Amino acid sequence: MLSSLRRCMSPRLSWRAHAFSPQSCRFTWFILRRSISHQSRPNSLASASVTQAIQHESSHPPKTILIVNKLRTQPVIQAIDDFLEHVRTSYPGVRVFAEDRPDIPAGAEVWRPGSQSEKVDLVVTLGGDGTILHAASLFSLGAVPPVLSFSMGTLGFLLPFHIDDFAKALESVFQGKATILNRMRLSCTFFDGDGRKIGVDEDEWQVMNEIALHRGSSPHLNTIDIYVDGQHLTEAVSDGVIVSTPTGSTAYSLSAGGPIVHPSLSAVVLVPICPRSLSFRPLVFPSSSSVTLRIGDRSRAAAGVSMDGRVSHVLNPGDSVTVQVSPFPVPCINRSSISEDGSERHTEGVGPGKEDDWVRDINNLLQYNATFRSKALLRYSRT
Amino acid sequence: MLSSLRRCMSPRLSWRAHAFSPQSCRFTWFILRRSISHQSRPNSLASASVTQAIQHESSHPPKTILIVNKLRTQPVIQAIDDFLEHVRTSYPGVRVFAEDRPDIPAGAEVWRPGSQSEKVDLVVTLGGDGTILHAASLFSLGAVPPVLSFSMGTLGFLLPFHIDDFAKALESVFQGKATILNRMRLSCTFFDGDGRKIGVDEDEWQVMNEIALHRGSSPHLNTIDIYVDGQHLTEAVSDGVIVSTPTGSTAYSLSAGGPIVHPSLSAVVLVPICPRSLSFRPLVFPSSSSVTLRIGDRSRAAAGVSMDGRVSHVLNPGDSVTVQVSPFPVPCINRSSISEDGSERHTEGVGPGKEDDWVRDINNLLQYNATFRSKALLRYSRT
Amino acid sequence: MLSSLRRCMSPRLSWRAHAFSPQSCRFTWFILRRSISHQSRPNSLASASVTQAIQHESSHPPKTILIVNKLRTQPVIQAIDDFLEHVRTSYPGVRVFAEDRPDIPAGAEVWRPGSQSEKVDLVVTLGGDGTILHAASLFSLGAVPPVLSFSMGTLGFLLPFHIDDFAKALESVFQGKATILNRMRLSCTFFDGDGRKIGVDEDEWQVMNEIALHRGSSPHLNTIDIYVDGQHLTEAVSDGVIVSTPTGSTAYSLSAGGPIVHPSLSAVVLVPICPRSLSFRPLVFPSSSSVTLRIGDRSRAAAGVSMDGRVSHVLNPGDSVTVQVSPFPVPCINRSSISEDGSERHTEGVGPGKEDDWVRDINNLLQYNATFRSKALLRYSRT
Amino acid sequence: MLSSLRRCMSPRLSWRAHAFSPQSCRFTWFILRRSISHQSRPNSLASASVTQAIQHESSHPPKTILIVNKLRTQPVIQAIDDFLEHVRTSYPGVRVFAEDRPDIPAGAEVWRPGSQSEKVDLVVTLGGDGTILHAASLFSLGAVPPVLSFSMGTLGFLLPFHIDDFAKALESVFQGKATILNRMRLSCTFFDGDGRKIGVDEDEWQVMNEIALHRGSSPHLNTIDIYVDGQHLTEAVSDGVIVSTPTGSTAYSLSAGGPIVHPSLSAVVLVPICPRSLSFRPLVFPSSSSVTLRIGDRSRAAAGVSMDGRVSHVLNPGDSVTVQVSPFPVPCINRSSISEDGSERHTEGVGPGKEDDWVRDINNLLQYNATFRSKALLRYSRT
Ligand SMILES: NC(=O)C1=CN([C@@H]2O[C@H](COP(=O)(O)OP(=O)(O)OC[C@H]3O[C@@H](n4cnc5c(N)ncnc54)[C@H](O)[C@@H]3O)[C@@H](O)[C@H]2O)C=CC1
Ligand SMILES: NC(=O)C1=CN([C@@H]2O[C@H](COP(=O)(O)OP(=O)(O)OC[C@H]3O[C@@H](n4cnc5c(N)ncnc54)[C@H](O)[C@@H]3O)[C@@H](O)[C@H]2O)C=CC1
Ligand SMILES: NC(=O)C1=CN([C@@H]2O[C@H](COP(=O)(O)OP(=O)(O)OC[C@H]3O[C@@H](n4cnc5c(N)ncnc54)[C@H](O)[C@@H]3O)[C@@H](O)[C@H]2O)C=CC1
Ligand SMILES: NC(=O)C1=CN([C@@H]2O[C@H](COP(=O)(O)OP(=O)(O)OC[C@H]3O[C@@H](n4cnc5c(N)ncnc54)[C@H](O)[C@@H]3O)[C@@H](O)[C@H]2O)C=CC1
Repeated sequence: MLSSLRRCMSPRLSWRAHAFSPQSCRFTWFILRRSISHQSRPNSLASASVTQAIQHESSHPPKTILIVNKLRTQPVIQAIDDFLEHVRTSYPGVRVFAEDRPDIPAGAEVWRPGSQSEKVDLVVTLGGDGTILHAASLFSLGAVPPVLSFSMGTLGFLLPFHIDDFAKALESVFQGKATILNRMRLSCTFFDGDGRKIGVDEDEWQVMNEIALHRGSSPHLNTIDIYVDGQHLTEAVSDGVIVSTPTGSTAYSLSAGGPIVHPSLSAVVLVPICPRSLSFRPLVFPSSSSVTLRIGDRSRAAAGVSMDGRVSHVLNPGDSVTVQVSPFPVPCINRSSISEDGSERHTEGVGPGKEDDWVRDINNLLQYNATFRSKALLRYSRT
Repeated sequence: MLSSLRRCMSPRLSWRAHAFSPQSCRFTWFILRRSISHQSRPNSLASASVTQAIQHESSHPPKTILIVNKLRTQPVIQAIDDFLEHVRTSYPGVRVFAEDRPDIPAGAEVWRPGSQSEKVDLVVTLGGDGTILHAASLFSLGAVPPVLSFSMGTLGFLLPFHIDDFAKALESVFQGKATILNRMRLSCTFFDGDGRKIGVDEDEWQVMNEIALHRGSSPHLNTIDIYVDGQHLTEAVSDGVIVSTPTGSTAYSLSAGGPIVHPSLSAVVLVPICPRSLSFRPLVFPSSSSVTLRIGDRSRAAAGVSMDGRVSHVLNPGDSVTVQVSPFPVPCINRSSISEDGSERHTEGVGPGKEDDWVRDINNLLQYNATFRSKALLRYSRT
Repeated sequence: MLSSLRRCMSPRLSWRAHAFSPQSCRFTWFILRRSISHQSRPNSLASASVTQAIQHESSHPPKTILIVNKLRTQPVIQAIDDFLEHVRTSYPGVRVFAEDRPDIPAGAEVWRPGSQSEKVDLVVTLGGDGTILHAASLFSLGAVPPVLSFSMGTLGFLLPFHIDDFAKALESVFQGKATILNRMRLSCTFFDGDGRKIGVDEDEWQVMNEIALHRGSSPHLNTIDIYVDGQHLTEAVSDGVIVSTPTGSTAYSLSAGGPIVHPSLSAVVLVPICPRSLSFRPLVFPSSSSVTLRIGDRSRAAAGVSMDGRVSHVLNPGDSVTVQVSPFPVPCINRSSISEDGSERHTEGVGPGKEDDWVRDINNLLQYNATFRSKALLRYSRT
Repeated sequence: MLSSLRRCMSPRLSWRAHAFSPQSCRFTWFILRRSISHQSRPNSLASASVTQAIQHESSHPPKTILIVNKLRTQPVIQAIDDFLEHVRTSYPGVRVFAEDRPDIPAGAEVWRPGSQSEKVDLVVTLGGDGTILHAASLFSLGAVPPVLSFSMGTLGFLLPFHIDDFAKALESVFQGKATILNRMRLSCTFFDGDGRKIGVDEDEWQVMNEIALHRGSSPHLNTIDIYVDGQHLTEAVSDGVIVSTPTGSTAYSLSAGGPIVHPSLSAVVLVPICPRSLSFRPLVFPSSSSVTLRIGDRSRAAAGVSMDGRVSHVLNPGDSVTVQVSPFPVPCINRSSISEDGSERHTEGVGPGKEDDWVRDINNLLQYNATFRSKALLRYSRT
C-alpha cells in the first residue's frame, strides 16, 4: 500500500519518507486517504496534509535535475554554467536537463514536458517568482518534483535562496536534509455551455497562484455566476474574479483586496476584481470546496482566463470553469534547509512564525503594516 | 495506531455523547495526537478534523439536556415551558437542567458550570447568536456537548432552527440522525509582564467568535506587539486587534474589514481595528499557529479584553495573551439534520455549498454582494 | 460683462441667469473669475461654482431640442415618437434634432457634433446612464446645453425622470422652472514621450465620469508615474489608475474602492486599480489640481485609455495624459424641477440631503449600508 | 465694509489682505459673503475660500505672541527660553503670552482663553500635531490667529517647521512674507432628545481633525441615525462614526478606512468605525452640508464623543450632534514661507502638488503606496 501511495504522490520520485518521523506518518496517512478518495468526496484532511512541510530523507540522492530559467541575461547564463560545472565535479553521474530552447546550455540534455517525459528528481529554477510558476506549469499532469529556487538578486515570495548559495543548498538536498513546504495547487477544468469539457484530460490546468477571469480590453463588465460545491453563491458583475491559492494570496489576489493567507493552510480564496457592488468581501473556503465560475448567459463581455499570469482561454457566455484543489502540490524546498542550526528545526515543522521566512517576507517584501513615521527624528524643514 | 486513527476518522462509527461516540472517538484520536505533541509540533491535521462535520449515530440517546437562554421574554418563557412539557411526555426519564438563576423554569434542575458539574448530553439554546456564545462559555474547561440552537424568530449565523420546529429537531437528535459542524474555538492564556500566568488553569478562556483587544474609552491608541509562533510579526498602533475563528469571521472581524472564512476551515484570522497604517491587511493563519498579543511597554493606552463580546481583563503595558486553537470545539447541530432528504446528504459532508446553509446565510443575513439595482423597474420619478 | 460671460459659459444657449437670485450672483461672479483666469491659476472657487445647482429662468424657452438615444428597442422608438408628437402639438415651432444614424426618427432633423453644429437649447436623453455620458461626449468642444434625462424604467444615478413624466418635465423646462446640477467634467490632454501633444486642440477629451488607464488584456502590470500640479506623487504598479469626477465616484471608481463623493463638490478622485501595494489609498484633490499620468519608461505593459467607458487611445511607455477640471460642466436638470412644492425649494439649493435625490439614490441604487438582517422575522428553518 | 469684514474674520488681528492680489480679492469676497450669511444658508463658495492659502501682507507686524506647548520636557523648556530671548532682543516691545499653568515660562504673561481674552496676533506651538490641535481649541469662539508650528524633531502632518529654524520662520512672519493654508474646522452643536441645545452658545465646539462617536468600553454596538441636510441618510450599527475635515482625513478617519483628502478642499468626510454592514463606504460631502448624528432610541450603547481626540460628552439614546463647517478656520503658516525662492511661489497658491509639502508628507509620513520591494538587491538567503 505504501508503495502504491508513493507512486500516487510522486511517481517519478525516489524520495522516501523517513519511516519514523511524524511527517512520514502523516505522509503514509495521506496516501491512505488518497487511495480511498475514489469512493468518497475530496477529503479536506488529505488536502490539509498536502500543504504540510515534510522533511524528506531520500533513499537515494537525486539522479536527474531539471534546470528552469526564463531570462538568458548574462548573470543567468553565467550562473547556469557555474551550476553545471559544479554538478559535474561534485555530483558526477547526475544528469542535467533543460527545456528545449535554442539557448539550451552546453552540457544539459533536452527535456520535454508530458506523460512520456524523463523522470526528474529535482527542479532547479533561476530567476524571479515567475520562473517557479513556469517550472510548476511544466508538471501539469502529475506530481511535481521538489523545487529548489534561486533568485538572481531580487527578492521574491517564492525565492528562498540566493544564487551565490547554490553549492550549499545543493549539498543539503543531496544529503537528504532539505525541508519542504508543499504549496497547494488548483486544478481547473473548462466546460462549454452544454457542459462539455473543453479540451482533453491532458489539458487540465494546474495553477500555483491563481486563476483569474477578466474582461480584458472589453469596455463592458462581465457577469459571472459563482457556485460553491454546486450551490449558487452569487452573481458577480465586475471586471472579473480571482480564485487563488494561499500562495497566490500575496500575488494578484492581494492587489484586488484579498487577505494574506499562510501557504501552509489548505484553503481557496475568492476575490472579485472591481465589482459593481459595495458588499463583495473576499471569501476563504476549505480546499475541499469546488468553485465554479460560469459566464452569465447575458454577460456583456466574455472573460479572458489568466492562469498564473499566462493568458490561456477566453470564456464566452455560458462557458464555465471548475476549480478544485489539485492532488499535486508543488514541493518547495525551504530556506531552513541550509540554516546552520538546522538540527533542531527539523522537529519544528513549518508555519507562519517558523522557518519558512514568511513573516520576514511579508515584512520585507510587502512592507506589511509600515506604521506612520511620526517618531522619525528628521530635521526636514530645511531640506 | 493507524487503525485506531482510521476508525476515528470513519464517519459513522458509533459514539455516545461520552465514551463511545464518534466525537469521543475523534476526541480520543485528537488527544492522542495532542499527547504526542510534546515531541512533535502542534498538529494541524488534528485541528483540521476538529472542524469537520460528522453525522452522529449515538449508541444511546441523550439522558440529560441543558437549556440555555439569556432573555426571559414572554415568548422565551412560553417556549421553554412547551419544550419541558414535550421532553417530559416524549422522552420520559430525560433530565433537564438550567442555569442557576432566580427565574429557573419549573421542572428543570439547577446546573452549575465547572469541573464538578453534572454530565450534559445535549445543550439546547433559545435566543440569538449571543445565547450560543454564552452556552459555549459554560464549557470552558473541556468538551462541549452537542448544541441544538433555536431562534425565537430572528435570523442568526449560529441559529439553524426555528423554535417552532423543536419537536422535529429533538426527534432527529434522539434518533441519532443529527449532523454536526464542529465550530473551532480559541483558547486564550494571559501573562503578566514577567511572563507569569494570570489566573489559574481553570481560568483558561475559550472563545467561539474572537478575542478582541481595544483601547476602549481611552483617548489614546495602544501599541500591541504581535507574535506568531514566537516570532515577532509586527507592532500594531491602533484601536486594537482581533484574533478570530472562522465562525467569528462574520462577527466583529467582518466589521473591522476581515474576510469571510468558512467555519469548516481550521484557521485563525488576525484583523486590526483602525490601525494607524495604510498597509495592515487581514491575515489568515493555519490553526496550528499560536498568536501572542503583547501590550507594548510604552503603549499610551491599556487594552480592554473582550471575549466573544464579554469584557473580561484589562491588559496593561507588558501584559500579553497567547491564543491557540482549543482542543474543544463547539459541536453545533446542523440544519440538514431535519431535512427530508437527509439520507443522501450523509455522504456529502459539510462545506460552503453543502448542507450547512452558509451560502444561504451570507446571502440572506449579510446581503452579500448585493449588486447595484440598475435594472429595477421602478417608476420613481413620481414618488 | 454679463454678456461676455454668458458667451463663455453657454455660447449657444439662450438661457439667462435671473438677475437678482443668489445663484445668478454666483453665476456672474463665475464668469468674472473665468475672464481673468488667463493671467491667474485655474481658480478653485470658480470651479466650485461650476458644480452648484442653479435655477435658470430663461429669457425665452428652448427653440431647439436634441434627442439622444443609444438603443432602438420598441419602447424607446415608441417613446421618441410620443415625445416628437408632444413637442409638435404643445411647443409648435420648436425644432427637434437627432444624431445622424440610419434610424433617425421621422420628424427629427439630422444633427452633427462639432464647431459648426447647429445651436442646441436642450438635450433630451432616453436610456440609461450611458446615454447621458454619450450625450455629454457630443459637446466636447464647449458648453453643454441643459440635459433632461429620461429613464426607460431602469434606475440610474444620472436619471432623474421616468419617461412617463416627460410632458410634466418638459413643461417645467419651458416655463423656466428647471433647476440644474452642474456636473463637473474633466478635460484630458495627451502627450507623447517628447511632450508633444497627441492630436489637435479639437481632439481634447471631456469626461463626465472618469478617465481610466488599464493594462487591458496584457498579462503584465503597468507602471504609471502620477504627478499632481507637476510634482511627482507616486509610481503606481498596478492594473491601472482612475481619475474620476464626483459624478464618476459612483461608477468605476467605486468598484475600485473609491469613496462616494457628492456631485456638487468640485473635486478630483484618484483611485488605483489592483495596485501591487498595500498602502495605496484613494485620494481626493481640489478641482484646481492638475493630475498627470505618465506610463513609466520601463513599464512592462502599455495602457489602454477608457473615457467614460469608451476605449480611445493606447498610451505607450513615455506617453502621458494631463487631466484638469473642464470649464464646461454638464448642466443636468434636476428631479426637484417637477416637484409639486418646488417654490420653497428654490431658495434651498442642492446638496447631499437636498433636492437632488442623491441620498435616495445611494440608498436605493447602491444599497448603501444595508445593515445585516439580524432582526428579520423569518421562519426559515423550514424553507 | 472691508473693515467690518476684517472684524468678522479676525477681530483682533491686524493682518491686512493685499489689495490687489487675487487672494485678497477672494478674502474680500469671503467677508462679503459672511456678512450676508445671516439671511442666507451657509455658503459653500464662502467655505471654499476658507481653505484657500492666502499670502498676507500685514499692515503691521505681530504685537502679541501666544506660546503653546503641551510637554515640558527639557528640549521644550530650552526651546521656549531660546525663543523668548530671541523675541526680546530681535522684536523688542512684542508681548509674549502663555497658558495659565504652574510651569509658565519666565518672561511670558498669563493668557486665558475666552471672549475677554487678550488679543493674540500670532500663535506659536512647540510639540506634535496634538499641540496644534490644542492651540486651535483655545480659540473656539471666533477667529484663530495665524499659527506658526514647530516640531521638536518628530515629523507631523501639521508641523511645517523644525524648532531649529524658528528665527528664520519668525523673520518671514514679521516681514509679512508668510503664506497660509486655512485649515477648515467643523463646529458641533449638541442636542438632547427633546431638541434642546446642550450647553450654551459659548460651549460650541470647534474641531480641526474630527468629531468621533464611539461605543468606548461598552460591549455593545451603538445605533446612530445619520442625517444630511436634515434628510435621513442611513442608520449606522457600528462601533461609531467619524465626521472629519480634510485635515483630519489623515488622522483617525484614515485608520477607519477613509480616503485622503487634500486640506485645501472644503469638504466633510463621513466614515463609520467597524460597521456591521458590508456596504458602508466613506462619503465626502461639500462643506455646505450639515451632518447630524443621532443616537438611536433603542441603541444598546451610548456614544462617547471625542473632539480632536479629547473625550468630551457622552450622548445617550435620543441625543444628537449637528456638525457644520465653522466660519473660523485655522490659518496655518506654510512651509513655503521660509523657502529661498519664495518670490515666485507667491503667485502659485497652495495645492496638492504645490508648496504645502502635502505630497512629501503623505509619502514620507504615511509611506503612501510603498510598492512591493521585488527589485531590491539583497542577498538575503544567508542573513
Ligand atoms: N494587478 C496585479 O497585481 C497583477 C498581478 N499578477 C500576478 O502576477 C503573477 C505572474 O507573475 P509573473 O509571471 O512573475 O509576472 P510578472 O513578471 O508580471 O510579475 C508579477 C509580480 O508578482 C510577483 N509574484 C508572483 N507570484 C507571487 C506570489 N505568489 N506572491 C507574491 N508575489 C508574487 C512577482 O514577483 C512580480 O513582482 C500572476 O500569477 C498574478 O498573481 C498578474 C496580473 C496583475
Ligand atoms: N463593531 C462590531 O461589529 C462589534 C461586534 N461585536 C460582536 O458581537 C459578538 C457578541 O455577540 P452578542 O453577545 O450577540 O452581542 P450583541 O447582542 O451586541 O450582538 C452583536 C451582533 O453580532 C451578531 N453575531 C454574533 N456572533 C456572530 C457570528 N459568529 N456571525 C455573525 N454574526 C454574529 C449577533 O447576531 C448580533 O447581531 C462578539 O463576539 C463580537 O463578534 C461586538 C462588538 C463590536
Ligand atoms: N468594474 C467596473 O465597475 C467598471 C465600470 N465601468 C463604468 O461604466 C461607465 C460607462 O457606463 P455605460 O456606458 O453605461 O457602460 P455599461 O453599460 O457597461 O454600464 C456600466 C454601469 O455603470 C453605471 N453607471 C454609469 N455611470 C454611472 C455613475 N456616474 N454612477 C453610478 N453608476 C453609473 C451604469 O448604469 C451601468 O450599470 C464608465 O464610465 C465606468 O465608470 C466601466 C468598466 C468597468
Ligand atoms: N485609531 C486611530 O487612528 C485613532 C486616532 N486618533 C487621532 O488622534 C488625534 C489626536 O491627536 P493627538 O492629540 O496627537 O493624540 P495622540 O498623541 O494619541 O496621537 C495620535 C496620532 O495622530 C497623529 N495626528 C494627529 N492629527 C493628525 C492629522 N491631522 N494628520 C495626520 N496625523 C495626525 C499624531 O501625530 C499622532 O501620531 C485625533 O484627532 C484622532 O484623529 C485618536 C484615536 C484613535
